[in-house]
Amino acid sequence: MELNRMGSTAGQVITCKAAVAWAPKQPFVIEDIQVAPPLASEVRIKITHTSVCHTDVSVWQIKELVHVFPRIFGHEAAGIVESLGESVTDLQAGDHVIPIFQGECGHCSCCRSSKTNLCEEFVVNPAEGLMMTDRKTRFSIRGQPIFHFMGTSTFSEFTVVHHAQVVKVDPSAPLHSICLLGCGVATGVGAVLKTAKVEAESSVAIFGLGAVGLAVAEGARIAGASKVIGVDINPKKFIKGKLFGLTECLNPLDYGQPIQQVIHQKTDGGVDYSFECVGNVDVMRTAYDSCHKGWGVSVVVGVDTSSRRLLEFNPLELFEGRTWTGTIFGGFKGRSQLPELVDKYMKKELQVDEMITHRLPFLEINEAFKLLIEGNSLRCIMHMPNSGY
Amino acid sequence: MELNRMGSTAGQVITCKAAVAWAPKQPFVIEDIQVAPPLASEVRIKITHTSVCHTDVSVWQIKELVHVFPRIFGHEAAGIVESLGESVTDLQAGDHVIPIFQGECGHCSCCRSSKTNLCEEFVVNPAEGLMMTDRKTRFSIRGQPIFHFMGTSTFSEFTVVHHAQVVKVDPSAPLHSICLLGCGVATGVGAVLKTAKVEAESSVAIFGLGAVGLAVAEGARIAGASKVIGVDINPKKFIKGKLFGLTECLNPLDYGQPIQQVIHQKTDGGVDYSFECVGNVDVMRTAYDSCHKGWGVSVVVGVDTSSRRLLEFNPLELFEGRTWTGTIFGGFKGRSQLPELVDKYMKKELQVDEMITHRLPFLEINEAFKLLIEGNSLRCIMHMPNSGY
Repeated sequence: MELNRMGSTAGQVITCKAAVAWAPKQPFVIEDIQVAPPLASEVRIKITHTSVCHTDVSVWQIKELVHVFPRIFGHEAAGIVESLGESVTDLQAGDHVIPIFQGECGHCSCCRSSKTNLCEEFVVNPAEGLMMTDRKTRFSIRGQPIFHFMGTSTFSEFTVVHHAQVVKVDPSAPLHSICLLGCGVATGVGAVLKTAKVEAESSVAIFGLGAVGLAVAEGARIAGASKVIGVDINPKKFIKGKLFGLTECLNPLDYGQPIQQVIHQKTDGGVDYSFECVGNVDVMRTAYDSCHKGWGVSVVVGVDTSSRRLLEFNPLELFEGRTWTGTIFGGFKGRSQLPELVDKYMKKELQVDEMITHRLPFLEINEAFKLLIEGNSLRCIMHMPNSGY
Repeated sequence: MELNRMGSTAGQVITCKAAVAWAPKQPFVIEDIQVAPPLASEVRIKITHTSVCHTDVSVWQIKELVHVFPRIFGHEAAGIVESLGESVTDLQAGDHVIPIFQGECGHCSCCRSSKTNLCEEFVVNPAEGLMMTDRKTRFSIRGQPIFHFMGTSTFSEFTVVHHAQVVKVDPSAPLHSICLLGCGVATGVGAVLKTAKVEAESSVAIFGLGAVGLAVAEGARIAGASKVIGVDINPKKFIKGKLFGLTECLNPLDYGQPIQQVIHQKTDGGVDYSFECVGNVDVMRTAYDSCHKGWGVSVVVGVDTSSRRLLEFNPLELFEGRTWTGTIFGGFKGRSQLPELVDKYMKKELQVDEMITHRLPFLEINEAFKLLIEGNSLRCIMHMPNSGY
């Protein structure tokens, strides 16, 4: 048992490769860094595969966060438990795991409620760079601390994560695919199934056809939606979109009238559900207006980090019966509900591999970022040097 | 059958008393007016009892609506069908009815959906003064048309209403009480039971303890809420509030901190449901902030007619999992669902009479308005000269 709990590196500082961001927007530098052993309640994970998500890109670009650099980004990944801190009893060394940015402490008022996946103790904060256990970092380079990101920091061969942010998964599930369940796929599919609870035969509009938007389409397919409209100003996205079951693709630039009017005409007054997967205040408003009055629900999935603009509406609009809501991590309580999604993938009820457009060695992370920023990749999976992939 | 369908005045112009508002904010004048027979799809009703609701007051005060004066206000009432226009097959002369401002055509996409009580055909519009059938009025005085209000215009001994806005009720139910189901009681009770769907053991906060706020408290009692907090800056309201089951009454003026913080402290992070029954943008924001993150639902019941201020929020707030929604007529589909509420009253499962603080002859309508405006009445029921009350 003790052997199983701890690998041979347990208790020791590990030196390994990581992609260090030395300053906002500056290219990543592959460095040899030191990873301290996990403290009580923490887990050290050997990352095997990590992807890049738009949130990595957008937070890395925020100049105001210069005080949490140097930093190790990354939050969509999978790996294997290397060693455990004291009092972690629900995991063992060797367990296959997905780190999650939305933790689940299991005992706060939110965790005890079936209505939310938020957690009072683990609040998602991209500006936070320290481990909550001791307000320090586990990463260092030549003695200088390196800040964490979202409690996950998966752009490293080894990372330390609080056990409330670690999901044990079926060891037969391929880590090089299910790493996408750590953010994008879970977020999009969950937005449909957990947050909006889309019913069969519903109509759905998806704004923004990146990986999250396609995951929403996949959720709509699983829910049995009869009409799934994809909206994007980049028509290249429509090819993949059709593979994910979009019944119609609309490019707002092709129309001489607001796209919400086009959607109203095509759906007898608006869609039942709309999903904003861009992170733009104007698109949020358009998505809301695209819903049917009386019952339309608009779910905001995208995060607007670039502006400080507020959403505005006339209070009388509330009487038209549309609802605006948001979703984080698709409403999944990570530790207790993400394994269901892994099972769905293993039973071939959930498409994931179809979202992977590129695979690159981890050392080429700057290329992976470039692909995503330029809109040329949906998901690029990077394998670690020792991942065995 | 024909006899039953038509009273002796059927097909004739009726001259009767009505309270005519000649200009915004000007006292009502009791006048002898002419009421034309109903056109096809319409119903002429002998009003027996009518109340005054804040919406009558606030719309009567809007100077910009001067073009729809002279006008007959009133929308919370009960009466007896006097005669029917052609093609009205679901009612008979002598039926006891409640006119409703939120019509139910029965065949539009909203009426066919179980998710809303809105109607595509009958859209509530306080600025509209004509009957939709022919874009004319049924009321006149010395040959001059008098405009309608909300399609109901109950401040008249006789009124003409589209049959989609007429609810047939149990003839044994006392009209002098169930007239309140035409707006205030249905709105508040329905906001809880139909719109928010409050579960047993929930916590609830009610902002504004007028008749609608007390009806929300009554709904919360019926739903089995365990904590019902009433908030008002007029402590006189707390006496009646306690009779309606409030477990706690808070006066924001008694606290040196924002009332939402006080509510958070008293409820372990916020209430499950909050209801805004004032119609003030700042109170709407406070009610929203008083909800628990993750699942709190804030229902806007009050209508802000006095300002053109917008509600503003940071899109990131949506990720905290609170929901803002509105309710019109408590989510009740009037014709098909209001009779349930009448039954509840008849079975003594719903308190209504406790809201009636005053009764006055209809001819004293200006006094009834004064009582409401000065905060001295909850509901004042006026009986018509020939009501037999």
